[in-house]
Amino acid sequence: MRLDVNGLEVLGREECLALMGSVQVGRIVFTDRALPAIQPVNFVLHGEDVIIATASGSKLAAATCGAIVAFEVDAFDAGDRAGWSVTVVGQARAVYDSGERSGLSRLPLDSWIPGRHDHFIRIRSDVVSGRRFHPMMVEARP
Amino acid sequence: MRLDVNGLEVLGREECLALMGSVQVGRIVFTDRALPAIQPVNFVLHGEDVIIATASGSKLAAATCGAIVAFEVDAFDAGDRAGWSVTVVGQARAVYDSGERSGLSRLPLDSWIPGRHDHFIRIRSDVVSGRRFHPMMVEARP
Repeated sequence: MRLDVNGLEVLGREECLALMGSVQVGRIVFTDRALPAIQPVNFVLHGEDVIIATASGSKLAAATCGAIVAFEVDAFDAGDRAGWSVTVVGQARAVYDSGERSGLSRLPLDSWIPGRHDHFIRIRSDVVSGRRFHPMMVEARP
Repeated sequence: MRLDVNGLEVLGREECLALMGSVQVGRIVFTDRALPAIQPVNFVLHGEDVIIATASGSKLAAATCGAIVAFEVDAFDAGDRAGWSVTVVGQARAVYDSGERSGLSRLPLDSWIPGRHDHFIRIRSDVVSGRRFHPMMVEARP
């Protein structure tokens, strides 16, 4: 097991992508009027790309078009004091090609957050990083 | 109940702060070498300020010092397809004053994420926004 300077387990790219596939909600991090912004969204992995559907004309659609964004997923257990998090950093692009849109619309992208979902955003997983921790790590720290 | 353009319930500042007080982990959003970055952290509310403890000299400590950051907490139930999220945007500052550090060290800031926690970051809740949704909202959408 590889640990980082804080004593968290460093997860490899394959494991990060597998963990991402185990959850349905992530958080997209972008810039809104020069301020940091974050919004929870349903997503699905398509190959190694993160696919999100939002409303065309939305703040999220406008702010992420062509931008470098971060996308984070995590799971924590307050009882066990354990958890993991995975972050993707990459370029987001709006999907306008009708063939590509048609393909993405067949993905199991199940939106349980309200709102229109007629605008696809595709985030390339340029950099994928992940960490995992559990109580033994905290007890073992110097 | 006030709804936003996407049909999500808009939460008031007081309710947002109450929900923040119900969880122990949030996500701080900042800029790292000109790229968007996000990191899960344990936190506690002190008045209306978000208090985080991290390692002095860490990337997080350096990148947030004096910066405008976002801080997000949320809870989702995949079974019920319901959830809420709250985001604070405000200036983060490092706490160096020994009296203030002493006061903050007595807060119930319980760190279950590994690493040193000798450096306090205080985020002013300048802008607080929150949303909540449940399945009825999705079914009712046009």
